[in-house]
Amino acid sequence: MQGSSYQPPSFDPGWVWLAGAGPGDPGLLTLHALHGLEHADIVVYDALVGKGILEFAGKQAVLEYAGKRGGRPSSAQRDISRRLVELARDGKRVLRLKGGDPLVFGRGAEEALALVEAKVPFRFIPGITAGTGALAYAGIPLTHRDTNSVVSFITGHGSSGGVPGNVDWDAVSRGSPALVIYMPLRQLGAIAEKLIEAGRPASEPVAVIGRATTENQQVLETTLAACVADIERTGLEPPAIVVVGEIVRLRAGLDWVGAMSGKTLSADPQDIGREAG
Amino acid sequence: MQGSSYQPPSFDPGWVWLAGAGPGDPGLLTLHALHGLEHADIVVYDALVGKGILEFAGKQAVLEYAGKRGGRPSSAQRDISRRLVELARDGKRVLRLKGGDPLVFGRGAEEALALVEAKVPFRFIPGITAGTGALAYAGIPLTHRDTNSVVSFITGHGSSGGVPGNVDWDAVSRGSPALVIYMPLRQLGAIAEKLIEAGRPASEPVAVIGRATTENQQVLETTLAACVADIERTGLEPPAIVVVGEIVRLRAGLDWVGAMSGKTLSADPQDIGREAG
Repeated sequence: MQGSSYQPPSFDPGWVWLAGAGPGDPGLLTLHALHGLEHADIVVYDALVGKGILEFAGKQAVLEYAGKRGGRPSSAQRDISRRLVELARDGKRVLRLKGGDPLVFGRGAEEALALVEAKVPFRFIPGITAGTGALAYAGIPLTHRDTNSVVSFITGHGSSGGVPGNVDWDAVSRGSPALVIYMPLRQLGAIAEKLIEAGRPASEPVAVIGRATTENQQVLETTLAACVADIERTGLEPPAIVVVGEIVRLRAGLDWVGAMSGKTLSADPQDIGREAG
Repeated sequence: MQGSSYQPPSFDPGWVWLAGAGPGDPGLLTLHALHGLEHADIVVYDALVGKGILEFAGKQAVLEYAGKRGGRPSSAQRDISRRLVELARDGKRVLRLKGGDPLVFGRGAEEALALVEAKVPFRFIPGITAGTGALAYAGIPLTHRDTNSVVSFITGHGSSGGVPGNVDWDAVSRGSPALVIYMPLRQLGAIAEKLIEAGRPASEPVAVIGRATTENQQVLETTLAACVADIERTGLEPPAIVVVGEIVRLRAGLDWVGAMSGKTLSADPQDIGREAG
């Protein structure tokens, strides 16, 4: 970094940095988040933060697990917020590290508002959200000129654990050619049914990406009609993200991870040449 | 980084790395992108990559500008793709560096398909897209439990420069309580009109974020009805991103950048206490 004038922000005692760790690959950590890890007194991390990332923490740092999966009672969330306040009041430099981005289905706003109430100063450090990171490693663009001008991120579970109740699936289905659904595995059957009812073709391409951007990344290409059976058959496990839309077809051309293991990529993954001819 | 087992990928001659530089703040660069900058023979960068970021480039690196703004003829895009192929065939380590994320309204898929056609190996390195990075620095969460289970990214201009023609504004408006519109300033009047026609309240909160995450960041809080006049009045200039929805109200509680300059934050930015009482 010798040529750069980059000055990381000062991490002062009594502050909380609410940071995203990205989707898994430590190389997707930001410089600010790295600086936070290196200088924190305590790192309060959740279940989706990879081990390779916590290794960046300085020797002085205490690592404290505060994981929580969708569907658990919200008291767990209140406990985490209370803990952050307590640590900051104790004069610690507190890094609250979450998988992905703290403000994309990450409850970062809730935790920050608890800090505001307690008059604890904080900073947000955005991370690569799974919606962009997982797709990039799967070789699926979020947008492409021919396919979509809109891409929507949707949570795959409501606060009580089922299909989210406040989603207008009909409007989402009509308005957004590309859908990225976060952590929906248990609800995927019901969600796929709603999308098909709303008019999306049963044959529409779907990609299910498990353990995105890690060495154990799995990508399953399937369809709305077949996705549940295919997940069961392949044993793909959470955490996973699901992509629905024509953009999934582009993977035949853009799966650079597969290409590194010998897969041949197509320069015309949408078969436009054939359609034109 | 001494405690970490992080091993950056080897940047081999003849490869192209298609990387995102994030929204502006050099601290939002990823470790992989930093490694690419430090080891590239040539960095082909676009107009939205900040100067502080190019300073990370190694001494051996040639910096080549290949900027392009929306509305220009697509031949410029073909020229860039051709140039990447030429440089890779010449045995260079080519870092193609784009503002934000290359696969979110970034034409990264098009450039990669041109590489595939020419049998040039490549890797995607996702970056923090403006949709997440700008909002985090403006103190606006993309999602919040009370407000939205869906957030949609929309391009603010079509390939010919006007309002994108292939967006179903009615469905988007009904399906997505939170909209993040990329680079729409010239088209914003027409887009706001379409959203109001589709049933969004004229008084709905809007945030316009200019030069996001940089020292010159400007955030304008306005409404669908007033946004065009307010932009004109304040002289806010592109590049800018626009946020529409209830999530904008949370900024009264979460504007941590403002708080560093003395702004008092509210722990109840949605005024839920008053509504309940």
